[in-house]
This record gives sequence, C-alpha cells and structure tokens, in this order.
Amino acid sequence: MMNRILITGAAGQLGRMLRGKLRGKATVLRLSDIADLGEAAEGEELVPCDLSDGDAVMDLVKDCDGIVHLGGISVERSFDLIEAANLRGVYNLYEAARHHGMPRIVFASSNHTIGYHLQTERLDHTAKYRPDGFYGVSKIFGESVASLYYDKFGQESALVRIGSCTPKPENWRMLATWFSEDDFTSLIETVFHAPRLGCTMIWGASNNDHGWWDNSHAAFLGWQPVDNSADHIAEIAATVPVPGPDEAVAKYQGGVFTDNPIIRD
Amino acid sequence: MMNRILITGAAGQLGRMLRGKLRGKATVLRLSDIADLGEAAEGEELVPCDLSDGDAVMDLVKDCDGIVHLGGISVERSFDLIEAANLRGVYNLYEAARHHGMPRIVFASSNHTIGYHLQTERLDHTAKYRPDGFYGVSKIFGESVASLYYDKFGQESALVRIGSCTPKPENWRMLATWFSEDDFTSLIETVFHAPRLGCTMIWGASNNDHGWWDNSHAAFLGWQPVDNSADHIAEIAATVPVPGPDEAVAKYQGGVFTDNPIIRD
Amino acid sequence: MMNRILITGAAGQLGRMLRGKLRGKATVLRLSDIADLGEAAEGEELVPCDLSDGDAVMDLVKDCDGIVHLGGISVERSFDLIEAANLRGVYNLYEAARHHGMPRIVFASSNHTIGYHLQTERLDHTAKYRPDGFYGVSKIFGESVASLYYDKFGQESALVRIGSCTPKPENWRMLATWFSEDDFTSLIETVFHAPRLGCTMIWGASNNDHGWWDNSHAAFLGWQPVDNSADHIAEIAATVPVPGPDEAVAKYQGGVFTDNPIIRD
Amino acid sequence: MMNRILITGAAGQLGRMLRGKLRGKATVLRLSDIADLGEAAEGEELVPCDLSDGDAVMDLVKDCDGIVHLGGISVERSFDLIEAANLRGVYNLYEAARHHGMPRIVFASSNHTIGYHLQTERLDHTAKYRPDGFYGVSKIFGESVASLYYDKFGQESALVRIGSCTPKPENWRMLATWFSEDDFTSLIETVFHAPRLGCTMIWGASNNDHGWWDNSHAAFLGWQPVDNSADHIAEIAATVPVPGPDEAVAKYQGGVFTDNPIIRD
Amino acid sequence: MMNRILITGAAGQLGRMLRGKLRGKATVLRLSDIADLGEAAEGEELVPCDLSDGDAVMDLVKDCDGIVHLGGISVERSFDLIEAANLRGVYNLYEAARHHGMPRIVFASSNHTIGYHLQTERLDHTAKYRPDGFYGVSKIFGESVASLYYDKFGQESALVRIGSCTPKPENWRMLATWFSEDDFTSLIETVFHAPRLGCTMIWGASNNDHGWWDNSHAAFLGWQPVDNSADHIAEIAATVPVPGPDEAVAKYQGGVFTDNPIIRD
Amino acid sequence: MMNRILITGAAGQLGRMLRGKLRGKATVLRLSDIADLGEAAEGEELVPCDLSDGDAVMDLVKDCDGIVHLGGISVERSFDLIEAANLRGVYNLYEAARHHGMPRIVFASSNHTIGYHLQTERLDHTAKYRPDGFYGVSKIFGESVASLYYDKFGQESALVRIGSCTPKPENWRMLATWFSEDDFTSLIETVFHAPRLGCTMIWGASNNDHGWWDNSHAAFLGWQPVDNSADHIAEIAATVPVPGPDEAVAKYQGGVFTDNPIIRD
Repeated sequence: MMNRILITGAAGQLGRMLRGKLRGKATVLRLSDIADLGEAAEGEELVPCDLSDGDAVMDLVKDCDGIVHLGGISVERSFDLIEAANLRGVYNLYEAARHHGMPRIVFASSNHTIGYHLQTERLDHTAKYRPDGFYGVSKIFGESVASLYYDKFGQESALVRIGSCTPKPENWRMLATWFSEDDFTSLIETVFHAPRLGCTMIWGASNNDHGWWDNSHAAFLGWQPVDNSADHIAEIAATVPVPGPDEAVAKYQGGVFTDNPIIRD
Repeated sequence: MMNRILITGAAGQLGRMLRGKLRGKATVLRLSDIADLGEAAEGEELVPCDLSDGDAVMDLVKDCDGIVHLGGISVERSFDLIEAANLRGVYNLYEAARHHGMPRIVFASSNHTIGYHLQTERLDHTAKYRPDGFYGVSKIFGESVASLYYDKFGQESALVRIGSCTPKPENWRMLATWFSEDDFTSLIETVFHAPRLGCTMIWGASNNDHGWWDNSHAAFLGWQPVDNSADHIAEIAATVPVPGPDEAVAKYQGGVFTDNPIIRD
Repeated sequence: MMNRILITGAAGQLGRMLRGKLRGKATVLRLSDIADLGEAAEGEELVPCDLSDGDAVMDLVKDCDGIVHLGGISVERSFDLIEAANLRGVYNLYEAARHHGMPRIVFASSNHTIGYHLQTERLDHTAKYRPDGFYGVSKIFGESVASLYYDKFGQESALVRIGSCTPKPENWRMLATWFSEDDFTSLIETVFHAPRLGCTMIWGASNNDHGWWDNSHAAFLGWQPVDNSADHIAEIAATVPVPGPDEAVAKYQGGVFTDNPIIRD
Repeated sequence: MMNRILITGAAGQLGRMLRGKLRGKATVLRLSDIADLGEAAEGEELVPCDLSDGDAVMDLVKDCDGIVHLGGISVERSFDLIEAANLRGVYNLYEAARHHGMPRIVFASSNHTIGYHLQTERLDHTAKYRPDGFYGVSKIFGESVASLYYDKFGQESALVRIGSCTPKPENWRMLATWFSEDDFTSLIETVFHAPRLGCTMIWGASNNDHGWWDNSHAAFLGWQPVDNSADHIAEIAATVPVPGPDEAVAKYQGGVFTDNPIIRD
Repeated sequence: MMNRILITGAAGQLGRMLRGKLRGKATVLRLSDIADLGEAAEGEELVPCDLSDGDAVMDLVKDCDGIVHLGGISVERSFDLIEAANLRGVYNLYEAARHHGMPRIVFASSNHTIGYHLQTERLDHTAKYRPDGFYGVSKIFGESVASLYYDKFGQESALVRIGSCTPKPENWRMLATWFSEDDFTSLIETVFHAPRLGCTMIWGASNNDHGWWDNSHAAFLGWQPVDNSADHIAEIAATVPVPGPDEAVAKYQGGVFTDNPIIRD
Repeated sequence: MMNRILITGAAGQLGRMLRGKLRGKATVLRLSDIADLGEAAEGEELVPCDLSDGDAVMDLVKDCDGIVHLGGISVERSFDLIEAANLRGVYNLYEAARHHGMPRIVFASSNHTIGYHLQTERLDHTAKYRPDGFYGVSKIFGESVASLYYDKFGQESALVRIGSCTPKPENWRMLATWFSEDDFTSLIETVFHAPRLGCTMIWGASNNDHGWWDNSHAAFLGWQPVDNSADHIAEIAATVPVPGPDEAVAKYQGGVFTDNPIIRD
C-alpha cells in the first residue's frame, strides 16, 4: 500500500469525490485546496495551499509518494485567473515533485485541449492539439511541462484528458465523454501501481459505446474502464432534446466551450 | 418517433426484411419499388416508382424524414441496367432529398466497392476503392454523390458497405461478411437518431470473430452489432467444403464477383 | 515510335493543344470529337464520334496503341449531359480498349475529384475523394472504371488529375494548379514509353513552387515537370487582386467550382 | 480432420505441452526432436531428427499435412548453436516442405525479434524489428525465409511471435506477454483450418488486459484468445516485487534478454 | 505594399536584423521593444512597450496590418521571466490583434518545442511536442494560443519554429538548423502576401542538405528557401571539433538546451 | 583524416572500384578478400581473410577506425555458401568490431531484401522486408545483427541497400536502381564524418529521376547523390528492348532475382 497520496483541488467536485473513493488506498490522504476542506477524517491530512505560491507547494509535496493534481481552474475563466492557478501552479507542482523524489503525478488534463475536433473524428494519442479556450491552452501547458520533466529528469506522469466526470451522463455529448467516478478511481490505482508509467496521455472516458477516443496506446497499463454511458441513454432520450447536427454541443468535441468568448476581467 | 421513413427497393430481399423489421419505428413506412409490393399493411404507404424517373422520385421523397435507399440493381448486370437504376437513380434521389429538407439517407453501398482487396488485408475507412464490377463502380458513384451533397449542402448520409445480409452465414467467406438482419436494423435506428451523422461510411457487418473491416472511425455513433458469424461455423464446416486459398471466394474480399465477366446485353 | 495514338475530345481546348504537341510522336494521330475537327494534316486521321455510341467507340479504338482520353464534358453541367459523355462514354471506351488489345489509356481526370479539400492541405495519392460537382463525380467514376479494368484484365491507365492546363497561370489559385502544355505533353510521352505503368494516378501539375499535390508515389515513371508557375507571379500580382482567405477561389482546392449550384436542365 | 501433423522440438517445454493438447487433432502426430521423446502413445510417430541434417529433415516432413515448428534453440546461446539449429534448421525445413506439397507451417517465432521496443509502445504488424540477441536475430531469419517461400512458391505460414507460453503468468512482464497453452492450441487449430492463411505474423499472446501487441491485422482468421493474465494479478502482486521503471524487465519488451551478453563458446 | 508592419522584440538580435531587411516592405515599420531602439530612421515608428502590459500592447497593435512577433525571452530563463514575457505577452498580443482587425501574425516559435527528438529523426508538422526547457514550453503555449484564435475567430498566423538564425552556420548542429537571414525575410514576405495562410506551422530552416525538418505540408505558400548550410561546411570542419555521437549537441535536435537545468531565481 | 579504413571483399567488383576511389581518404586502406588482391600500392595493406574464420576476422578489424563491409556472396547461391560468408561472416565482423572499439561499419546490404515489392511502389525506411532469395535473406540477417549491436552496445552502422552499382545504368530497371560509383563513394565519406550516425538504413541509389526509394529519413546526414540515370536513357532506349509490364525485370523491384530458383548444391 502507498504511504501518502496528495490530492490537490480536494475541495472541488472531483476532489470531494476522490477524497471518498481513495480512502484506504494509502495510509494517509493529504488533501489540499485554497477553499475550505471541512474536517479531517481519520487517515486524512488537510493542508490548505495556494498553488501559485511556490514555497507553499514545495512544502505540500514533501513526503508524498503519489499526487493527484486536480487543483486549479477547471472551466473557462479570465487569463489572469488561469495564469496563476494553471500555469504557475503546474510549474510549482513539478518543481516541488522534482525536489521530493519525483512521486508519480496524475495530472487532470482535459478534452478541451482538443475541443475543436469534430465529433465525427476518432482521435488517438497523436491527435493535434486544438484548444477551445484558455482553459484548454493551460492544460496543454501542463502536459508540456510534464513532458519536459520526463525527458529531462525521468519524472513519470499520467496525463488524463478528462471527458465529463459526473455520477451519470447527463446529455447527448456525454454519451461520448462520460468518465464514471469508479473508472477514474480505478485508473488512478492502476497508474500508481504499474511497474512503468512513463509520461503517458490517457483519455479519461469510460467504456462508452459512443466513443471518440482510442486508448489502445496505453493498453500496457492494463486499465479497463467498465462503465458505459449507453446504459443511461433511455433516460437522456426521455429528458434531453436531441440537438441539431450543427449546434456546438453536437458538432465539436469540446461542445459548448467552443461557443465561449475570451473572458477578460 | 420519426414520422415517415421511405424504403426504396422495398420489394427486394433486403427491402422485404426491413419492411418487417422497421414496422413501428415510424408512424408511416413509405415503401417503394418498381416491382410488386403486395398489400399495404397498417402504417404502410405503397408508392411504386421507377428510380430513373426524376419527377417520380421527387414526389416519392416528399414528406419523409428518413430514407433507406436499397433501390437499384444489387448484383453484377449490364451497364445499361446499372446506369438507369444506380447512377441516374442515385442522382434523382439526392436531388429530391435536397428539395425536400434533406432527410437523412441510409445508402446501401457494398463491399464490392473494395472487392479486389485480399481477404488477408484489414481495411478501415481510408481503404482505396478497388471495385470488382460495374455494380461496385456504381456504388462508388453513389458514395461520391453523397459526399458532394454533404460538402455542398450539408445533406447527411450513412454509406453502409453491406457485406452479406442474410438470415445466417452460408459459407466460409460469409464468416467475415455476414451482416445479420437485426444488426442492420439496429444500425438504421442508430443512424436516424444520432445528433450528428455527417457523411459517414460504415462497414455493414456483424460483430464477427472473422472480420476484415474496422469500424472504429464510426464509434461516435455508438452502434454495437451483436451477432457473430462464428456461432454458425460448425454448420458451415459440416456442409461447405473448405475452398483452396487461391479460389476467388477465399482470396478476394469481393469473392466470386471478381470472377464475373463484364456483362454486355 | 508508336504507330497510332488516339486523342478523343480533340476539338476541345486541350485536344487542339495536344494535336499540335503530339504531332510526330506516332506515325498516325487519330483525332476524334463530336465537334468539328477541321482539316486533317499529314499523319492525322479524323474520326468523328459520339462517345455515348458504343459501336462507334468500338470502331474508333481499333488499331490504336495508345489513347489520350480527353473526350466528354470538362466543366460542371447537367447530369444528363455528364451521364452521356462522361459515364457511358468512359464505359464505352474501356470496353473498346479491352476488345482491341488494351492499349494504354491516359485518362484526363480532374482536381475536381478532390475539390473540397482546403488549399492549406497537402494531398498525396491516398487523399479521400471530395468531389465539388457532378463533373468531379464523373471523373471518380472514370477512375473507378480504370481500376476495375486493371484488376480484372490488366488494362493499364494513367489517371491524370489535371489542375489547370493553360498557356500561362492566370490567377492566384493557378499558382498551385498550373499544368503547362509542355509538361502535360512530356507526361503523355513518359506514360506511353514506360516499361510498366499499372493503374497510376498522377497529379497533373507543373513543378510549381506553390504546390498542393505530392506525386512521389509515381516517381518510378521518371517524369519530371519543368515549368513553374512562380515564374509568372509578378504578372499575376500586377493584374489579379489578391482574394480574401475565405473566398472559394482561395479556400478550396476546387476553387469556384465549390460555388457552383447543381445544374438541372 | 487432418491426417498427420508434425511437431518439431517435441521434447521441449512447448513440444511436450502441444503433444498433449494436439492429441486427436490429426490421425497421426509425428513427433520429432534431437532429445529423447519417451514412448509413443497411440496415434503418435516418433522420428528423432537433427534439424541441421537436410536429408533427415527431408524425410521427416514427408507425408505431413501440417507442421508446428518448435525445433531449435529457444533461448540466447552461442552463435554456433543458433546457426546450426535455427538458421540451417529453418532452411532445411522450408526446403523439405517445398518438396512435399507445401503443408502449412506454424513457425514459432518470438517477441525477441522486437525486444528493444519499450514496454510503453504499442506494436502492430508493421513494427520495426529490434532483436535483443542472436536468438531474436535467428527468428527474424526464419520469418524472412517464410516470406521468401510465400512470395516465390506460395508456401503458407503462420509466424507466431510467442510471448511467454507457460501454465500461468509468473511476473509483472508476463501480464503483457502471457500466452496460455489453450490459446496457443486454439491458434494452431485455427491456422490449419482457415481457407486462406497467406504468410501472416501473429502476436502469440492471450487476451491480456495488459497488452503491447495488436493482432487486428489477422482478424480475418477469426482466432479469439480467451485467457487473460489479469486473472492472476493478485497472485503476482503477492509474490513478485514490483520492478523499478528502469529495470530491463519493466523497460523493454524483451525484458531481461536485453541484459544478456553476446555468448561466445 | 503593406501599410504598417509591427516588429516586436525589435531591439534583439533577430529584431535588429529584420529592421534592416524589412525596410521598404511596408510604408511604416513600427518597431517595439522594452530595450532601447536607438533613433528612428525614415519610415520607422519606435514604440517602446512592455509585452506584459495589456493596455500598452493594445495600443501597440492598433493600425498595423501585419505583425512579426519576436518579443519575449528567447533563451532558457527562470519561469518568472518567461511567464511575464512569453505567456502573458502572447495573450496580450492575440487579444490586441483580435480587437484591431486581426492582422496576420508571424509568431517566432522555436525548435526547442521539439528539442528532445533525436537528430536521426525526420520530423514533419505532426511531430509530437517534446520541449527541452521552459522556453520551449512557452513557445508551445504560444502556438496553442494561435490555434485557439484561429479556430474561434479566424485569426491567421504563421508559427515559425526557428532553428538558428545567424549570419552563417557556426557548428555541426547548425548544418541542420541554420536559417539564413534572407530566407527568414523571404518567408515573412511570403506569409504576408499569400491569399490564404490559415494557422500554419513552418519549420524555420534554410534549404540545408543536412535537414531534420519537412515543410512539404506548407508547400502551398510557395516559399522556397535558397541558402544551404552545406556551403559553409569546410569552414566548420576546419574550426569546430566533431562532437561525439552522444554529446547533447549531436544527439538531440534541441542541442545543448537539453543539458540546461531548470533555472530558478 | 581517418587513419585506417578496412575494405572487405576488396577483390570483388565493388571492392576494386572503392579501392581506387577511397585512396587518400585515410592514411591506410586495409584491403581484404579471400581472392587475390594483387600488389599493394602505397598506403595499402593487403590482409587475405576468410570471413567465416572468427579469429582471422578478429585480427583483421584491429586498429581500423572505419569498415566498408562488402565481403561475402553478392548474388544468389546455395545456402551453404551464403551461410559461411554472409551469416557467419557478419557475426564475425560485428564481434570483432565490438572488441576493437566499435569503428563505424558501412554494411553493403541490398535491394534484394525487398525484392518482391512491385516497381510501382514507393518505399521508405519502413518498408516491409520481402526478400527474393537467400542472398536477400542473408542481408536481412546482417541488418538485424547491426540493429542488435546498436541497441545493445552503441555500435553505429550505415545499412546501404545497394541498387545497381555499375559505371553506367545498363537497362530499364537500372533507371531506378543505378548507384553511381561516385555517389557510393561520397556516401561512404559522409557516413564516416557525420557527428552522429546511429544505425541508419540508406537506399543505395543515385539521384535518379526514376526512383522507387525515399531517403528523406536520412537527410540529417546531408548526403546528396548527384548522378542521374536519366542522363543515359537515350543509350538504353537505343540498345535494350522495352520489357513487357509483367516480365520480372519490369514488375518486381528485385527484377530477375525473383525468377531465381532456390539453389541447392
């Protein structure tokens, strides 16, 4: 069993979910956020931290043997906000990891790195970046930093391009992008226990019948998602109108993010 | 539910099958053929039509919100016959669809568009056309017309390269090409209900262990064939002699069509 | 030296040009068209012919040991006109060639088979067909017939996707598509004298600095175009306004053909 | 049912296993080795043979209608030993097969033909050879001989790049390479009964969750491995330490073979 | 002729060179830097500007119809410096361009975006990013921003991955990376005058015999570099020792940048 | 300048040619063959050697800082002859090189490693092996040994797949395969002086208009062949009949070697 896993962004939606799911997967879960984390349960350490503060991040990473990096902005916002949390924050995290023995990092990347690809396209790990906003650009930045630290120092990372991690798929687009909470959890466990990880991009989606993304390059990890958005299609069909083929939500993989304006303060 | 689905070629083998299978999938099934269609059942409209007659086809397509285009010649015949039914017929159909709101079209294309590929080759959607007769050439023509109407007008089509759609696989080659009636039916339903279709080629084969064709580019549709020709292998082995490796039926994907002569009247 | 080369469409713009350029390349030039061909010069045979008349084409091809097939419609027209000349016409030609010893055929195909590709794309011989009109569709038909006759009978063809064969490039798009008359002529000579031709698609363009098309797959023929549209850029810049990036002439490889409507009579 | 299957190397680990598994799959199993084969059971013929002796191999192959060629050296040894058994031996076998009606050959090739690829790479049938020793080089030689005899004479072969054929997977690397005895057996049966085999490389691995190798090019055979190394992961995790990511056993597909020196006598 | 070209980073090495080379290519050259720009010559406007100041950049870009963006850090430095100049600076520039009519942007990217590829690899436009420092990461960020503004707004950019732009090649590695001043100049002119640019990556290297990079995807622009580092090989051979094959300068495309540490203040 | 270059097979046709061309490229040329080498000129050392004798080869390689390995059988012969000279001989050479400081090796491989590819195919460095005889198989063996010694020990090699190295091209096939003596010589010089070579396959052909082979992957070496078989086409056309498209000499890249039988003693 691992000794200490750090979860950044632990007060966010994914963070709260994983705080529960990863309980017991390590002796200690170190939970960090800039927002309130509530009370520490047994086996939890709460470490408030602003990711844009390099010294604080250096302390945060100490003594961890695995990091799930969810911290930062996870929707389209102004460049200022994204810069502090997602650009400087990633830099701080990798520098800290380098100084503390290079624990494996699960980096929460996003489908918005490739959001302008059409939904009729099948993408594999060689797909061209086509970000649909500064949020997506910031995730490309993060993947690039991970690549740099792997080539230069051997730091291993899993770059998980998360689709839509929610309890259930909620609309037609999520038939392709849904990433069940259990499948995300099993991926994290796989990543931390594989003999060799490298710096591997993994499409964060469940075993959906309706898929855009091909993970076969990462088959060596042996990760097998088991949930399938198609089990929920009747519910979606009953409650969500079918979008027209040229609506952003049905046209581009990034969905409505492609309709977002550039946000200035 | 859809309002009205048009099936052309409804008196043919596939047409009769789908007439039954699609019953109840739309308020009205409009059935058309140049041959006798028998009696109209409840929810059926019978509209005899010669596909080479542009005005008639214009009327035929009116008020339909989905078309399954099976009409035309489906085996190797003389150029004259193929020209009228499969070249002019397709032109008439797409022109009519353009004038009537561009209902989605399921176009019955064929494996004979690529019949000269070896059976030891694995083909995906980028495979080079290698027709094995004028029938195959006419289906390339049809796929090209569909592409034109998509790029120019946005008309969506499913180009289904049908293998062998029969109740059961009947010989060794059909272990690869078999397309069960249920799988064809579920594909049509999928195509009509997907938010976005584009102009997508789909290999028309079941979930056969023995496969030549890779549909992963169309995974976004979420269509999952369920039948498997391998369930019938014992029966084939018991009744059909194993062909030699250099017989057309075992060598080329188009099978014995590659042995066909050019038919002149 | 070859004995007799047939040029179909010899009264057209390309036909008149090649009538001059190929003089002396064979003992006899057989020139054919449905339009007036003027007087026969020495070494010329004039054989008026409607390509939609199978018997006439059968006679036309007799005793030729090379065919340059320019005949048929070469711009966007109604389906009726294209059907007679470009669909039936090609069928008639290949049937006649099959009956008369399979002389090599230079088939004048077109960039309009792939006209909806963006001008910023580089295409090689594996490019997907994306026709921009029925003219383009008819050329795909012709290429398919050539493929069929090669796989089934061994008939060799050069499928020349002609860009813009004019004395000089005349606008910005022709910087990419220009195919000089001399380069077309040298290609034809190369094709007729190569030991092995197969059924080979060749992009019909000169050695232009501004190129969209990659002929490296056909390097085995040893054909080297020598003219370069860039030698005429100053003249174009001085006389033709630069189009905006989203005008059809600057956006799609097929240029203004992509703006053509479907022409009905 | 087949009449006579020859198994070379029948006294080795794989040979003894297949001797049992293939019992009853042919009227006669002809078993050959340079080592002692014990007593012949019913339906068995024992034919001791040194594969480097061409005349003996010529006799050995006579009257067989299928060959499973396991004979030769199967680990890294000196060039002298490999030359006699794996180079000359393969030559002798293919020459004998050519003289005796070209029965299909299942050639036991190896993952050591590509051993220097990283474990994070996914390989298909186009992967570059990267042998990890003279044993691997000798298997490339064998695959090349098979290719030659197919192109020149039509001799069909299955080139099975065996991973690790053992009763159970025994370490972390075998999660990817394990090839169950039953899956190997079913592959041999498939190969002998397929209408057309060609000269097809097949990755010899079970249906492991942790896979490096893509057999989709060979889907036409219909072979479906059913065992999965992941069913044994708990046992491995409990008994085998996780190797570091840069140990040969976790880094290269050939595992510790990449650490082997060149062995001289 | 263009009216006003903006050169950012005009006081740097490349900026000073282009200040001279682009003289007369537009009515006005607007030159900007945070460093001293000296005296304005005729046809020059000097506009000092800190690229991290969004309002200042907004003013800077006004009334320009072409931008050559050289500004920012061009070697490996601390993250703080790179963040201000290369991350925020690029954001400011693209926002300003969007507000001022979207003049074309020549973005000075770098080979250090792909610096960890081996020198024995040939890269085209699909090469995976493999940055060799934060400088390289910042250029990936810039290319991503350009992609975003193209997909979302239609802003056209040339992403020039500059090799080594110096008067002459100075060492063995520069035989591959040398980008002559004249070739860079002609590329800028080509980019500003092409009818359609899109968002196109262009390898910034001369017509060197020793090349790693394939620009054929950008042939549509018609740009033809003419200088060749091989003309200087005798001088290099006479003055620079041949590095060993495993020295960074001979092993990785990024050369000694791969030996750089992460620089912290 | 290099100190000592070893040429094996120096009494053969290529060896005699290179003995002259490489004079003065090293202080000493060590020339070796099993056949008579005549008198040693100044700067030459003659070392008779049977390549199948490991001890002799060990001595032969001592003190060399570059090897041009032409030795062995260079046409189709019996397996026995090929085994001794081309299999064991290559093993002996690489073992000797490993013991003596790993001087670079130019390995004379052959187009007969890929001889069964059609002449209408364009091959790059990823082309599948398709040997046309045991000679071709032996060259695959040699390339595999070179790969092994590079991955395991870092031994650098140039694997030159020689087409037809003759004073002039002599027939239609040689329009594609011709490798002029000067171009081979300049390649050897390039290989010995490049900072990094790796284990690189290079198609051994001149700058022929009629080419089958793409060397762009090796552009990093900067080698530019300058001769062109097309300069000799008139002479060939005047003296050599054009072969039919299905004659081996015009069909397969290996030419008449594909017609060779297996040679037994």
